[in-house]
Amino acid sequence: MSLAISMSKTEIIDSVLNDFSEGYFSLYYENRRRLLLELAKEYDLNRTQVCELIKQYLGGKEAQSPGPEDEGVLTSFYRIERNLRHALKPKYEALFERLNMHPGGLKFLTILRADILSIIAEENIASLRALDSDLKEKLGTWLSPAALELHQITWDDPASLLEKIVAYEAVHPISNLLDLKRRLGVGRRCFGYLHPAIPGEPLIFIEVALLKNVAETIQEVLWDDPPIPESEATCALFYSISSTQPGLAGINLGKFLIKRVITLVKRDMPQISTFATLSPIPGYIQWLLSKLASRSKLAEDDKSQSSADTSGSTFWENLFEPEEEKAIMNISEEFAAGKNGMEVMLNLLTSKNQEWSKSAELLSVLKTPLLRLCARYLLHEKKRGKALDSVANFHLQNGAMVERINWMADKSEKGLHQSAGIMVNYVYRLENIEGYAQSYFSSGNIHASDEIRRYVEVLFFL
Amino acid sequence: MSLAISMSKTEIIDSVLNDFSEGYFSLYYENRRRLLLELAKEYDLNRTQVCELIKQYLGGKEAQSPGPEDEGVLTSFYRIERNLRHALKPKYEALFERLNMHPGGLKFLTILRADILSIIAEENIASLRALDSDLKEKLGTWLSPAALELHQITWDDPASLLEKIVAYEAVHPISNLLDLKRRLGVGRRCFGYLHPAIPGEPLIFIEVALLKNVAETIQEVLWDDPPIPESEATCALFYSISSTQPGLAGINLGKFLIKRVITLVKRDMPQISTFATLSPIPGYIQWLLSKLASRSKLAEDDKSQSSADTSGSTFWENLFEPEEEKAIMNISEEFAAGKNGMEVMLNLLTSKNQEWSKSAELLSVLKTPLLRLCARYLLHEKKRGKALDSVANFHLQNGAMVERINWMADKSEKGLHQSAGIMVNYVYRLENIEGYAQSYFSSGNIHASDEIRRYVEVLFFL
Repeated sequence: MSLAISMSKTEIIDSVLNDFSEGYFSLYYENRRRLLLELAKEYDLNRTQVCELIKQYLGGKEAQSPGPEDEGVLTSFYRIERNLRHALKPKYEALFERLNMHPGGLKFLTILRADILSIIAEENIASLRALDSDLKEKLGTWLSPAALELHQITWDDPASLLEKIVAYEAVHPISNLLDLKRRLGVGRRCFGYLHPAIPGEPLIFIEVALLKNVAETIQEVLWDDPPIPESEATCALFYSISSTQPGLAGINLGKFLIKRVITLVKRDMPQISTFATLSPIPGYIQWLLSKLASRSKLAEDDKSQSSADTSGSTFWENLFEPEEEKAIMNISEEFAAGKNGMEVMLNLLTSKNQEWSKSAELLSVLKTPLLRLCARYLLHEKKRGKALDSVANFHLQNGAMVERINWMADKSEKGLHQSAGIMVNYVYRLENIEGYAQSYFSSGNIHASDEIRRYVEVLFFL
Repeated sequence: MSLAISMSKTEIIDSVLNDFSEGYFSLYYENRRRLLLELAKEYDLNRTQVCELIKQYLGGKEAQSPGPEDEGVLTSFYRIERNLRHALKPKYEALFERLNMHPGGLKFLTILRADILSIIAEENIASLRALDSDLKEKLGTWLSPAALELHQITWDDPASLLEKIVAYEAVHPISNLLDLKRRLGVGRRCFGYLHPAIPGEPLIFIEVALLKNVAETIQEVLWDDPPIPESEATCALFYSISSTQPGLAGINLGKFLIKRVITLVKRDMPQISTFATLSPIPGYIQWLLSKLASRSKLAEDDKSQSSADTSGSTFWENLFEPEEEKAIMNISEEFAAGKNGMEVMLNLLTSKNQEWSKSAELLSVLKTPLLRLCARYLLHEKKRGKALDSVANFHLQNGAMVERINWMADKSEKGLHQSAGIMVNYVYRLENIEGYAQSYFSSGNIHASDEIRRYVEVLFFL
């Protein structure tokens, strides 16, 4: 096996690369781990050579200050720089490059990276993380969107391809063949990106519904309504986008896919004027629960420490408005308990089987605060200047705006668990995509409709 | 324009990249040259940052010797290494990477590189050569053969594609539509490599004739014989391979193309057992003339200096065997003049309109020495350990062997001028391709048939 790696220094031998990938597939997790660790540690840099070149580099720089006139001196200077650049390339890069050239090699590399990601998710191994970041960078340039083929997936496609769609649909699982057929039938579209080196398997695919209006709930898209005649549609709704390759995590192909699909649909169906999504908010409840837990605790500490001091100058902030707090505290004890609104909410949201979602009383009490806090989560909660929610961040960096949030839009167990059943519509306006993407990229600006902005303004007036 | 380059530091803006390439196309040579020079000089490295990181790197290395145990220290060490690697990447790489992602960008980059190559062919500019080597490396990994589509070019292809075949055929120019149609008809094949990001235009294509025997002359392939029924063919003859993109010079796609075509033809037509080329020898006469000129001069100098010393211990070597020399000196004065065989030959080969090739007498006298010296040129003349002849080097590095040289195989003006009308058959044997390629790569071994080897052995016995 290590012979196969060191081979990478000489000419490509197809059979060696084949043996290597076949050998790798035959290994179990523990041996793959050992192999990858050896690759990361024994085949990174020749550090002696790097230091030698650094000495030459510094020597070369001193010998001639930046008077870039003598082409001979410059030539040798560029040569040292180039050699240093090459010496700083880990040796395993050569193996990656050879595999990329090799039939089946790109697919193999994505599998390799998927394994690496699952190892570093469990163990913090610096050398393996360095290898991963190198491989990710390489994969990113090799999977240039300009080289990807946009393919409309239909019921006429090979079963081997459709089977992949069923297996990889990550947002709204496909329950049976009928479900799949409907998603590929009248009033629906499904587009995938195929790479010539990974045939028969889209790297990423998107599902589209052609509708009269931007849908508010996923139920109406997936189940309730029969499709309308396509000629009557004015809206293309992206209701699911799924990546099929765990080994391509962090490489954003979706952005290009969405842009190309918009251009294509617009060309084929000029009557379509709205391009929107109906998207999950995967991080909302997790964020809310942690906020509720910490604030509720602070509130109690604060009360017990200085019960005399009733002014508002406390460190903790009540997540609720007074009206909301009152309504929550009035919930009949049959359903809820807690010393304050936040504790009550925390208990409700963490109760077994999402019981709260089955009571009309609770739904009406919780609707207002959950929607308002959801708007706040989407528009104001950030991490390193970007939206905290991963799906929000994805669409915002692609140039979308936050249009509307919808109550009880996904009543599936997953939907209730992730986002209390709330879903969001992001809207793509062709004329704004580049500008919005740019301003989000450079300064974290989140563009949003007036409607959704109104939820949050209330908060600021408090 | 410089705005368009510096843009590369932020998010991709399609319109800026479009403006950049359109702006570039509108420039004349001199302004393109200025733009490329500015790109090469002003957008290469941030050398202050490189020096800063080098200091950190050396500091980091001293602080902890290679006891790679503490993951925290290692992490920061890998980070510095990675930063240094990134800092050593010229800034223009970012522009190249963005263009690669951009529709039409890859094609644009090949045009950019073609311009760069024509500038550095005239002027030795170190910074531009550094830029070229960087771009070449990038293009090499982006044009992975695994991502290229093998397409059989037929008379049913769009005229816009066939037009490119006519325009780019570099070996045996296509004279008219009938000629093209024949090359795509019965008993012929033409295969091209298409890249998804450069649609409608093969990057490289190869022309194949299905024959009973390995052809000895290009005339019989292109003109003389009507094609045989394909079922009777036992040999696939590669008679032309042409690259369409000057900007991809030095990136060997032909190797992968030949291998895939062999596999494909073998699968479709199992009766084909021989895969051979009929190839030009573009450097033969140029090499021979310079040898003749220098040796002939040495011979004369030597004679005049020491006419008494008749021993063989001279520095110069007669390129001819005694029999050949005698025959050449006996050529009637009507045709030739010169103090020795080498001078006569030199005069003949440089005579106007290749007159020598029209005389039966001269052809019979010159045949033996020209074939023998050609074998010597192909098998023994090297540059940096590789065959001096560029076409020979190409096929040898792909794993072929030198099989046979053919007299008067290309009587076109170009053929007579380049190689005195001699052509060579290289043979690819599937079972040897990898081994031969490997031994040529590692030690410069040139595999050749006994027949051609016999020409050269005579030389060694002298």
